[in-house]
Amino acid sequence: MKSVKVGLLGLGTVGTGVVRIVEGHQEDLSSQVGSPIVIEKVAVKNIEKTRSIDIERSKLTEDPWEVICDPEIDVIVEVMGGVDQTKEYILEALNRGKHIVTANKDLMALYGAEIMDVAREKQCDIFYEASVAGGIPIIRTLIEGFSSDRIMKIMGIVNGTTNYILSKMSQEGASYDDVLAEAQELGYAEADPTSDVEGLDAARKMAILGSLGFRTNVDLQDVAVRGITTVSKEDILYAKRMGYEIKLLGIAERQDDEYSISVEPTMVKHSHPIAAVSGVFNAVYVYGEAVGETMFYGPGAGEMPTATSIVADLVAVIKNQKLGVNGLRAIGPYKPKKLKDDEQVAYKNYLLLQVADKAGVLSKITQVFAEYDVSLESVVQSPNASMSDVEIIIVTHNASKAAMNKVLSHFESLDVIRKVKSVYRVEG
Amino acid sequence: MKSVKVGLLGLGTVGTGVVRIVEGHQEDLSSQVGSPIVIEKVAVKNIEKTRSIDIERSKLTEDPWEVICDPEIDVIVEVMGGVDQTKEYILEALNRGKHIVTANKDLMALYGAEIMDVAREKQCDIFYEASVAGGIPIIRTLIEGFSSDRIMKIMGIVNGTTNYILSKMSQEGASYDDVLAEAQELGYAEADPTSDVEGLDAARKMAILGSLGFRTNVDLQDVAVRGITTVSKEDILYAKRMGYEIKLLGIAERQDDEYSISVEPTMVKHSHPIAAVSGVFNAVYVYGEAVGETMFYGPGAGEMPTATSIVADLVAVIKNQKLGVNGLRAIGPYKPKKLKDDEQVAYKNYLLLQVADKAGVLSKITQVFAEYDVSLESVVQSPNASMSDVEIIIVTHNASKAAMNKVLSHFESLDVIRKVKSVYRVEG
Repeated sequence: MKSVKVGLLGLGTVGTGVVRIVEGHQEDLSSQVGSPIVIEKVAVKNIEKTRSIDIERSKLTEDPWEVICDPEIDVIVEVMGGVDQTKEYILEALNRGKHIVTANKDLMALYGAEIMDVAREKQCDIFYEASVAGGIPIIRTLIEGFSSDRIMKIMGIVNGTTNYILSKMSQEGASYDDVLAEAQELGYAEADPTSDVEGLDAARKMAILGSLGFRTNVDLQDVAVRGITTVSKEDILYAKRMGYEIKLLGIAERQDDEYSISVEPTMVKHSHPIAAVSGVFNAVYVYGEAVGETMFYGPGAGEMPTATSIVADLVAVIKNQKLGVNGLRAIGPYKPKKLKDDEQVAYKNYLLLQVADKAGVLSKITQVFAEYDVSLESVVQSPNASMSDVEIIIVTHNASKAAMNKVLSHFESLDVIRKVKSVYRVEG
Repeated sequence: MKSVKVGLLGLGTVGTGVVRIVEGHQEDLSSQVGSPIVIEKVAVKNIEKTRSIDIERSKLTEDPWEVICDPEIDVIVEVMGGVDQTKEYILEALNRGKHIVTANKDLMALYGAEIMDVAREKQCDIFYEASVAGGIPIIRTLIEGFSSDRIMKIMGIVNGTTNYILSKMSQEGASYDDVLAEAQELGYAEADPTSDVEGLDAARKMAILGSLGFRTNVDLQDVAVRGITTVSKEDILYAKRMGYEIKLLGIAERQDDEYSISVEPTMVKHSHPIAAVSGVFNAVYVYGEAVGETMFYGPGAGEMPTATSIVADLVAVIKNQKLGVNGLRAIGPYKPKKLKDDEQVAYKNYLLLQVADKAGVLSKITQVFAEYDVSLESVVQSPNASMSDVEIIIVTHNASKAAMNKVLSHFESLDVIRKVKSVYRVEG
């Protein structure tokens, strides 16, 4: 029986996991696809490096082109990361008729549409289950499980680092800086955590999920992004008192055929299933017009979970190959993209204001909301008040982003407001 | 463009949902599969019945054979329920080269292997996503999402009626009988609730999930079943005090290549994600050797959620049809089935004993456990004690079912034990 030959680009954490699964589960895998799966060649940065797995030295190369140009290789598994150079590798591999399995969210968020067009043209598969939410098969679920439904809302905890930080801050009452330092020590956060804590990593994943859920092309710049660096101990404490957790949520919403996609720290009601997702775990909540509420939970990163998704994609590629249908199951045509503007995007808001402690303050503040047609769900004076100032917590009803921006800008010229301490979206 | 013609067997709740989705989402569906989908003929019990959807009377028939024998029809969607007669319909439809989508868990649990063999032989698809956990695409997830992994454990809340009853008992401290009556009034439980409350419905679903997860043929009689009819208010109260919820859990476990499958009321630690699944919702927790912990949550029944799964299967059938690969993606070959015996099945146990209030009782009881090599995690005297008796709560470490049976049978002849009030499996 002819074996299927796989070329691996990258042998870091995830690449190592892929080798482990392909070798460890070989019998199961080959019984499913009908032939052995062989890791034929692996592009690495440094051949000399000591590795935790046994791999024949002759299979290693420091030149990715050697893998891509090898005519024996059927499928390229790309787990090296990077964008521009990697895109070049992948396009060349597709041009050579090789199928692609990738975990590269940056690449897919930036150039997914272009790469998938080439794949379709070359009748090659390109699968990327591992690019979002590690071991959770959410991409398959959106494409196949919910092919019959109209997805109205996707809310995702799709970045484990920030969820770890926020969970720890919530559980231990610790500060952002302290927890970040601890996360870096434990290897849950990188030395330069910008991409995670500023929400960029989550934004890339939401661009991918939004594209799939709405069957349109969501670009990275369509995602409104705000990170967690300004989330304070106090914010989390206040949120808890009111029955909320603060989570970095990616939210993709549809109304009729108009979309909005954002990533921001959000106050989520405790009763919502996503509020309980803690630590490095990921979860994606999907609301479909017909199916209603669903949620998919699991490890968002790590060697073996991510490798599970990659090898599942590999199995799918090989099954398609045996049936001669590679590149033919891709979804399309895509719908034209209509993004909502700030007048149309509406949600509940939480505001924490530090205001002067004098008569008539509340009336002045509520007047501003009224002026821009923002109605209020609750106004509460916080117990944490200093001598001359008091704190007020306001939760609005659904209000447009545009109206809220006007309210906030008006507040700047309102002398009774000393400081707008926090503003958060509210869900659940 | 030639349309795809669907024959519907049954137009009850779920059948109506299927018609609604196929009509309401026609544009989305046909853009995915490349041709219109038409509900061509529908077998109903009574043509005269008033219905909540508009459907041409000429499409209705009271004779299922008219649907099955119609040469124009490509796919049969079976949502009429029933086993023996329905099996005959489905086998004949397969023999006529028609693909099958079914929501029929009873049929698939009893005759799934046989029906799938015929489907393979006839190169027809048979899909049954809706048969387990309604709107949650768990069957796809096990077949495709985790094709690369070795599933070690599946724990499912796969019956909404019993989860509703247990959740209500837990939230309101109500008795089983009261909540059952209420559930019957609300339509969450049937007039004859036996199949739900005795765990038979869940057992059928676990036979299906076990077969898929372990890639073997789990028969219904392989599932050890215990229902919820003996779960008392007191049990739930005690469980909560110790940090547990009582859930009717289907548990399918693998150790090496030996399996055990059961359905029973189980004490689940609050920290386990499945403990928070309440009301009529379903959830399936899957532990894979590589992926680790995952959970899939959503509506377990209902018109539209179930129809979502059926129409997603329909889309898959039609895509396969366009590609000419129907019946070729089925998994197989199946592995031989090895079930664990009672010596090998081991888990933690909770026991509530009513014992005589005299010196030396505890020593006599713990001696029995020691005799059968069952070690104990905790022994606590309950606050609820009467004048002459006391209650003791014991939690064991993992103990084999065989050893526990010996302990319980020994207790019958131990005069200090007045009554074994409750025994539950413990998870999480």
